[in-house]
Amino acid sequence: MKKRTYSLLLLFILSMTIITAQEKKSFTLDDLIPGGSNYYDCSPKNLYGVQWWGDVCVKPDVEEVKTIHPKNGKETTLFTLEEVNDAIEHGVLPYKLVHPLKPLSHLMKGSYPWADRNLMVCQTRSQDGTGQYILFYDFVQKKVTHLFRLECSKGQTPANIDFCPANGYAAYTSGNNLFVAHEGDFSTMINPSLVGEDNGPDAEKDIVYGQAVHRNEFGIMKGTFWSPKGKYLAFYRMDQSMVTDYPQVDISTRIATLVPDKYPMAGMTSHKVTVGIYCPQNGQTIYLKTGDPTDRYFTNISWSPDETKVYMIELNREQNYAQLVRYDAATGEKEAIVYEEKHPKYVEPLHPITFLPWDASKFIYQSQRDGFNHLYLFDTEMPEKKNIFKQGKAGGQYCETVKVTPLTQGDWLVQNIIGFNVKKKEILIQSTEISPLQSNVYAIRIDNGKRRAVGNSEGVHQVQLSYSGNYLIDSYTTPTIPRNIDLVSTTGPTVRNVFASPNPWKEYHVPEVEVGTIKAANGKTDLYYRMIKPVDFDPNKKYPAVVYVYGGPHAQMINASYHYGVRGWDMYMAQEGYVMFTIDNRGSENRGLEFENCTFRHLGTEEMKDQIKGVEYLKSLPFIDHDRLGVHGWSFGGFMTTNLMLSYPDVFKVGVAGGPVIDWKYYEIMYGERYMDTPQTNPEGYKGSNLNEKAGNLKGRLEIIYGGNDPTCVPQHSLSFIQSCIEKGTHPDLFVYPGHGHNVMGKDRVHLHEHITQYFKDHLK
Amino acid sequence: MKKRTYSLLLLFILSMTIITAQEKKSFTLDDLIPGGSNYYDCSPKNLYGVQWWGDVCVKPDVEEVKTIHPKNGKETTLFTLEEVNDAIEHGVLPYKLVHPLKPLSHLMKGSYPWADRNLMVCQTRSQDGTGQYILFYDFVQKKVTHLFRLECSKGQTPANIDFCPANGYAAYTSGNNLFVAHEGDFSTMINPSLVGEDNGPDAEKDIVYGQAVHRNEFGIMKGTFWSPKGKYLAFYRMDQSMVTDYPQVDISTRIATLVPDKYPMAGMTSHKVTVGIYCPQNGQTIYLKTGDPTDRYFTNISWSPDETKVYMIELNREQNYAQLVRYDAATGEKEAIVYEEKHPKYVEPLHPITFLPWDASKFIYQSQRDGFNHLYLFDTEMPEKKNIFKQGKAGGQYCETVKVTPLTQGDWLVQNIIGFNVKKKEILIQSTEISPLQSNVYAIRIDNGKRRAVGNSEGVHQVQLSYSGNYLIDSYTTPTIPRNIDLVSTTGPTVRNVFASPNPWKEYHVPEVEVGTIKAANGKTDLYYRMIKPVDFDPNKKYPAVVYVYGGPHAQMINASYHYGVRGWDMYMAQEGYVMFTIDNRGSENRGLEFENCTFRHLGTEEMKDQIKGVEYLKSLPFIDHDRLGVHGWSFGGFMTTNLMLSYPDVFKVGVAGGPVIDWKYYEIMYGERYMDTPQTNPEGYKGSNLNEKAGNLKGRLEIIYGGNDPTCVPQHSLSFIQSCIEKGTHPDLFVYPGHGHNVMGKDRVHLHEHITQYFKDHLK
Repeated sequence: MKKRTYSLLLLFILSMTIITAQEKKSFTLDDLIPGGSNYYDCSPKNLYGVQWWGDVCVKPDVEEVKTIHPKNGKETTLFTLEEVNDAIEHGVLPYKLVHPLKPLSHLMKGSYPWADRNLMVCQTRSQDGTGQYILFYDFVQKKVTHLFRLECSKGQTPANIDFCPANGYAAYTSGNNLFVAHEGDFSTMINPSLVGEDNGPDAEKDIVYGQAVHRNEFGIMKGTFWSPKGKYLAFYRMDQSMVTDYPQVDISTRIATLVPDKYPMAGMTSHKVTVGIYCPQNGQTIYLKTGDPTDRYFTNISWSPDETKVYMIELNREQNYAQLVRYDAATGEKEAIVYEEKHPKYVEPLHPITFLPWDASKFIYQSQRDGFNHLYLFDTEMPEKKNIFKQGKAGGQYCETVKVTPLTQGDWLVQNIIGFNVKKKEILIQSTEISPLQSNVYAIRIDNGKRRAVGNSEGVHQVQLSYSGNYLIDSYTTPTIPRNIDLVSTTGPTVRNVFASPNPWKEYHVPEVEVGTIKAANGKTDLYYRMIKPVDFDPNKKYPAVVYVYGGPHAQMINASYHYGVRGWDMYMAQEGYVMFTIDNRGSENRGLEFENCTFRHLGTEEMKDQIKGVEYLKSLPFIDHDRLGVHGWSFGGFMTTNLMLSYPDVFKVGVAGGPVIDWKYYEIMYGERYMDTPQTNPEGYKGSNLNEKAGNLKGRLEIIYGGNDPTCVPQHSLSFIQSCIEKGTHPDLFVYPGHGHNVMGKDRVHLHEHITQYFKDHLK
Repeated sequence: MKKRTYSLLLLFILSMTIITAQEKKSFTLDDLIPGGSNYYDCSPKNLYGVQWWGDVCVKPDVEEVKTIHPKNGKETTLFTLEEVNDAIEHGVLPYKLVHPLKPLSHLMKGSYPWADRNLMVCQTRSQDGTGQYILFYDFVQKKVTHLFRLECSKGQTPANIDFCPANGYAAYTSGNNLFVAHEGDFSTMINPSLVGEDNGPDAEKDIVYGQAVHRNEFGIMKGTFWSPKGKYLAFYRMDQSMVTDYPQVDISTRIATLVPDKYPMAGMTSHKVTVGIYCPQNGQTIYLKTGDPTDRYFTNISWSPDETKVYMIELNREQNYAQLVRYDAATGEKEAIVYEEKHPKYVEPLHPITFLPWDASKFIYQSQRDGFNHLYLFDTEMPEKKNIFKQGKAGGQYCETVKVTPLTQGDWLVQNIIGFNVKKKEILIQSTEISPLQSNVYAIRIDNGKRRAVGNSEGVHQVQLSYSGNYLIDSYTTPTIPRNIDLVSTTGPTVRNVFASPNPWKEYHVPEVEVGTIKAANGKTDLYYRMIKPVDFDPNKKYPAVVYVYGGPHAQMINASYHYGVRGWDMYMAQEGYVMFTIDNRGSENRGLEFENCTFRHLGTEEMKDQIKGVEYLKSLPFIDHDRLGVHGWSFGGFMTTNLMLSYPDVFKVGVAGGPVIDWKYYEIMYGERYMDTPQTNPEGYKGSNLNEKAGNLKGRLEIIYGGNDPTCVPQHSLSFIQSCIEKGTHPDLFVYPGHGHNVMGKDRVHLHEHITQYFKDHLK
C-alpha cells in the first residue's frame, strides 16, 4: 500500500513539472458544467457526511467511519463497513425477513442522532429491492438493534422520511399518503399507521399529506413536524382538488401521455391547506381550527417545549398581514394571536419560532419589520391584547401582545439560527454583518444581545453545531479558498483544520475574476458586480461582453465564495474571448427589505434600470465593444433577459433567455402574488411586465429555451411569447429540452451550454 | 362612373410606362406566400363559382349572376343580388321566422342543381347569427320558394351539408351527430331527424356520425352518400372510443388546456367503422352486415342505379387485399364479393364504382392492377364465383367473378372520371397520357374503348361537365398561361374562351424556371426536376443551392402548370441568389404503381437515392457551389430533409425540416401501415427509417419546425428527435408555431418563410 502511494506521488510530481513547463490547459464545458464528464474533477473537493455525534465529530468514508475529537484532533476508527455488513448478514434478527437485506455499499449516509447512544441510523433495502428499511446499527455491540420496514403502496418508494430520535418513530410519505412507522419492541414487524384518510390512487394528486405545501414558499421545506418529545406529529394536509391542472405532456411513452399538474396561477383558485396533529400513542388525529378564510398560508409550524402548544404563522392571501398564532395541541383550539405584522407591500415570514432550550417561556422570532431580518426575543407571558399597531422602520406595522426585546439590529441581516450554547446562554447565528457578500458566524448573549464573531471573518460558511454548542464543523470557502473544513471552538480561539480542498483549476489557464461596486439607478445604493476578463486579456483590444443576469428575489449571484461564486459557463465564455459581467440589482437577496421590495407590483422595471447602470459601466471601459453586447439568464433571469432585449432593443445584440417568466399571470400564486398582487388588483403592473405586450420591440437575436415539462415556468410562458412575436412579425429563436423541468440537469446541461455558446458565437460577432 | 374608369386607365398607362423605364420590381414574401398581404394581387386571377345549370354556364359575381350560352357565347344577366335580397326581405314566407334572415352579401356561393328548375340553392343565416338555413331562390318567379333550418346543438354550426337534389333532403352534421332535414310541404318548419343514436357532448369525440372516416385515406372525402333517387342515405359511423388520445395542448386559454385528439398510431388499436343505411321515409336505420374482422377499411361507397344495392370496397388492416362487396340496401345483408385484388405490397382503392347512366348492368371500376390506374368495365351479371386469382402485370393478383373489359391500358394513368355523354355513350376522363406532368381530357367510347382528346393538349386542367355531357368548363394553366377558362364542346372543335388571367408577375423581375429529366438511382427511370436560377444569373459565378423536397406518395412537385408549379418561396430564394432545385423522386405521384411502391417497408431510402442523383446533377453544373448546399421540406418533405441531413451528412450544410415524420411508429395507421406495415411486422423497416436512430449523425445545421398542435405529424415526432440529438450530443435547432396545425397557414405563413429564409441566410453562406 505504501509503495503504491509513493509511486503515485512521484507520478504527480512528474506531471506537475510537465504542466508547468507546458501551456496550461483550456477548460471544456465538460470541466465546468454540472453533469459534465469531468465536472467532479474540476470542482473543489469536500468531506461528505461529516457531522456530529454528540460533541464528537464523525467522518464517514466508504469503508469506515472515523471520529475526530475536537479537543485534541485525534482520529479514531469507530467502525467499518465490513462490520456493519457482517451484522446485517449474520446478526440474529428476532424475526425472519422474507427478503434478506442488501449489504451497504458505503458508510456515507448514516446519521448519529443520539449523543448518548452508540447508534448509526441509515436507510437500506432488501436484496430484491422490494422492501425499504431504516436500520439501527450499534457500533459498540456491533449488531443491528432495530429495523423498520417502510411499507409503501405498490410501485412507490418512501419519501420525506422524518425520523424522531425522541420517540424512535419515523414519519414518511408514500405517494400522497402519510405513514408513521416505529421500532416497536423489535419482536415483531409492526405495520405502519396511515395518518389521515386513505388517499387512493384516483385522488392521488388531489389531496397531499405530509409534504411541503404552498409550493415551498414561506420557508416551507417539509410537511411533518414532530413535537420535541415525540408525543405528536404535526403535518400538512393540502387539498388541491379545486386547483386547475396544467396539462404537461410526457413524450417518452409509446403515444405521448398527459401528466396533469396542479398549478395554481396568479389570481386563480388556490389550494386549501390544513394542519393535522397526530398522536401515535392513540392513533388519533385532530386538525387545527384555523377558521376562515381558508384561502391563507399556514407556515413555520413549531412546538412549545412542553408539546402542549403549536405555533404557526398565518398569512393572508394578499400576503401583507402575518399573525403568529398559538393553538392547543390536544384540541386544535386557537388560543391566541401572539404577534402581528403588516406591510403595504408584503410580509414574508420565513422562519419558525425557536424556544430557548433553557427557558420555555421565551422564544426567538425573526422579522424584517425594521428593514433587515433580525432576532426578537419574545416572552410567552402574555398581557391582555391591546391591538395597538406600531410603525416599523421599513414602512410596515406590527402589534406585540407580549414583551419583545430586539436581540440584533443594524443594516445587515441574520441569515439563520445555528443553535444554542446552553451553558453560555448564547444563540449562534450566521449573518451578513461583515459584508453582504459573506456569511459568518456569531454567538449572541441572550441576556444582553452582545455578540462576538466565531471562526474566521472571511467568505461563506456552512456550519453544524455540536450537541453542547461548544464546537462547530465549519465548512467554508473564500474567493481564494476552494473549501476548508475546520473544527472550531465556539467558546475559544481553537481552530483545527480537518480538510482543505486542493485548487481544482491548478492546471488550467484561469480567467481573471474581479468584483466591485457601482451605484444603482437610484443614485445611492451600492450594487456589487463581478467581471471576468478573457484569458490573456489585452486592454487595448475590443471584446464582446455578455451580461449574465438573474435579478430576482432570494438570490445573489455574487458572493465571497471561491472565485466570487463565478459560474462555470462564465469562465468558459471568458476563455472563449468574452468579457462576462454580472450585477446583483435591487430586488436581489441579502441587502434588506427595501432593497428587495422596491420592485413590488412592477417586477423587472427597477431591476432593469440597475442592469443598464451595469451596462453603462461596461461601456465606460475602453476594452468593451459597444456593438457586441449580449445577455443571458434563466428563470427570473430569463424574464430579465427577454425584458432587456425588448425594453432596451438598441443595447443588446444577442440574448438567450432560459425558462423565462413571460407573463406573471402564468406564474403561481404564492411567489407571484407576493411581488405582483393579482392580475385583478394590479392590471397595470401585470400589463407593464407582460413581455407578450413588448414582443413587437425585438430587434436583436433572442433565443428562448425551456424545459419541455417545466413545472415552474410552465411552457405557456415561452410558447405564448413565440406566438406574440409571430403575431407582431418579430423573429425570436427557440429551443426545447424535452422531458426536462425548470432547469436542464444531468449531462444534458453540458449540451445546453454548448447550445447557448453556439448561439452567441453565431450571432454575437 | 365612366369618368373615373377613364382616369384610372390613364394612371395605369402612366405607371406602366414608369415601370418599363425603371428596373422591374423585386418580390417580397408578402407577394409570394399564401397569407401574404399582397399574395392575391400576385396570383393568377380566376372566375370563382362558375358552373353549369344544365347546359348553360352560370357566371356568378357579387352583384349579379350571368349566364353564358356555350353555343353562341352570349352573356345574359340571370338575376341580381338586389332581387334576391328583396325576395328575402319582402317575400311572403308561409310562416314567421323569429329571427329574420340576413341579406346575402354576394352571389358567389349559389348552386344550380336542377337543369329543369329555375332555382339557386344557397346557405344563409338569420340576422342574429343563431339560425343556419338552406334557401331556394326561384330566379324566374323572383321569390324564395323553400327554406330549411339546419338545427344544431348549442354552440355548433352545421357542417358536411350534403344536399340531395333528387329528394330535396339535406344531410348535415352538428358536432359528431348526423341529421337529415327536408323542405317538407313548406307550410311548417319540420325538425330535422337525428340519424343514429344521440351522440351527446360527453361521447362527443368517441363516436362520429356522417363524417369522413379512416383519416380521409382511400379516397374518402365525406361521410354521407345519398342513393340516386334519394330513397336512402348511406353514412359512416366511426367508433373511436378504443383509440388512444394524443394529448394536444391549447395554450391560448387562461391556463393551458388539454385537447385530446383520437390518434390511431401505427400498430396500435384502430377505430371501428360501420356503414348505416337510413331511410328518410320511415326514419329507420340498418347497418351493413360486414362481419368480422371489424378492424378493416370500408371505402368507396356507391349505389346501384335502382337503389337496391350498396357497393363498397373492403380492405383488410394489412391493406394488401381489397374486395368489392355488394350489399342489399334494405336488409344490410352481404350479397356477393364481386371482385378481389391482392398485392404483396399494398392495394389502395381510391375510387368508387360508377354505373353507366344508360345501362344499369354495367359499371366502371378503377384499378392499378396492371401498374397504372385504369378503367375496367364490369358487368353486374354474375356467373358462379370460381375464386380463381389471376396474375396482374404489376406483381399483384385479382379475381373476377363477372365479365370485365379493360377500357384503358398503357403506361399512363387515369386521374379521374369527369362524367358521361349519354347520347354518345362516352365516358370523359382526365389522364396523364400526354405527359406525366399534365392532366388532359379524353372522351372514351364505352363500346370499343376508343378515345379522343378534348380541348387543348397542354397543361393541367380542372373541368366541369355540363348536364348533357356536351360541354366542359375547362379551367387550365400551362407553364406560360396563368389561367384560362374555356367553354369546350366535347363533341366538336368549338372552344370559347371566357376568361384569361393577366400575368400577375408582369411588373416583377422573375427568375428563370427550367424543367428537365435525369435518371433515377435505378439507372433507368426518368425523373423530372425543376431548377430556378437567380435573377441576373451569371453562369461564371458560384451559387449556393437549396433543394426543396417533398418526395412522398400522392404528391408531385413539378407539373405543367404556370411556371411548372413553382413555389413562391422558391422564387423568392432564387431572387435572393440561391439556385432552387426540386426533383420528383420515385415514390411520388402520377408515375404508376411500381414507381410509387418501390419504397414499400423502407420509406425514405429509394427516395433519398434519387434525391442524391439530383444533387449529383446539380454538382455537375459549373455554377453550383458544392460547399453551400441546403435542403428544405415539410411533412414527408420534413422527413426527407432530416433523413438527408443525417444519411448524407457531408452533402448538405443546412437543412430546414418542417412538420417532419421522425419515426413512423408515431404516424397514423391508415397511411403509415400502407407503406410501412406495422412496427410489429416490420421492425427492421421501422428502425431503418427511424431518424431518432440517426440523430448522432448530424453534422450540418438542421432546424426542425412544427405546428404546436400538429394533428398529423404530432409534436412527439419533432420533440423525440430533439431529445435524441441531445442524448447523442448533436445540435439541431428548433422552432414552433404555437396553435398551428400540420401546416402554418394564414399570415403566419409569411413569418414562417421569413424564418426559414433567415436560417439559410444565417448558415448557408
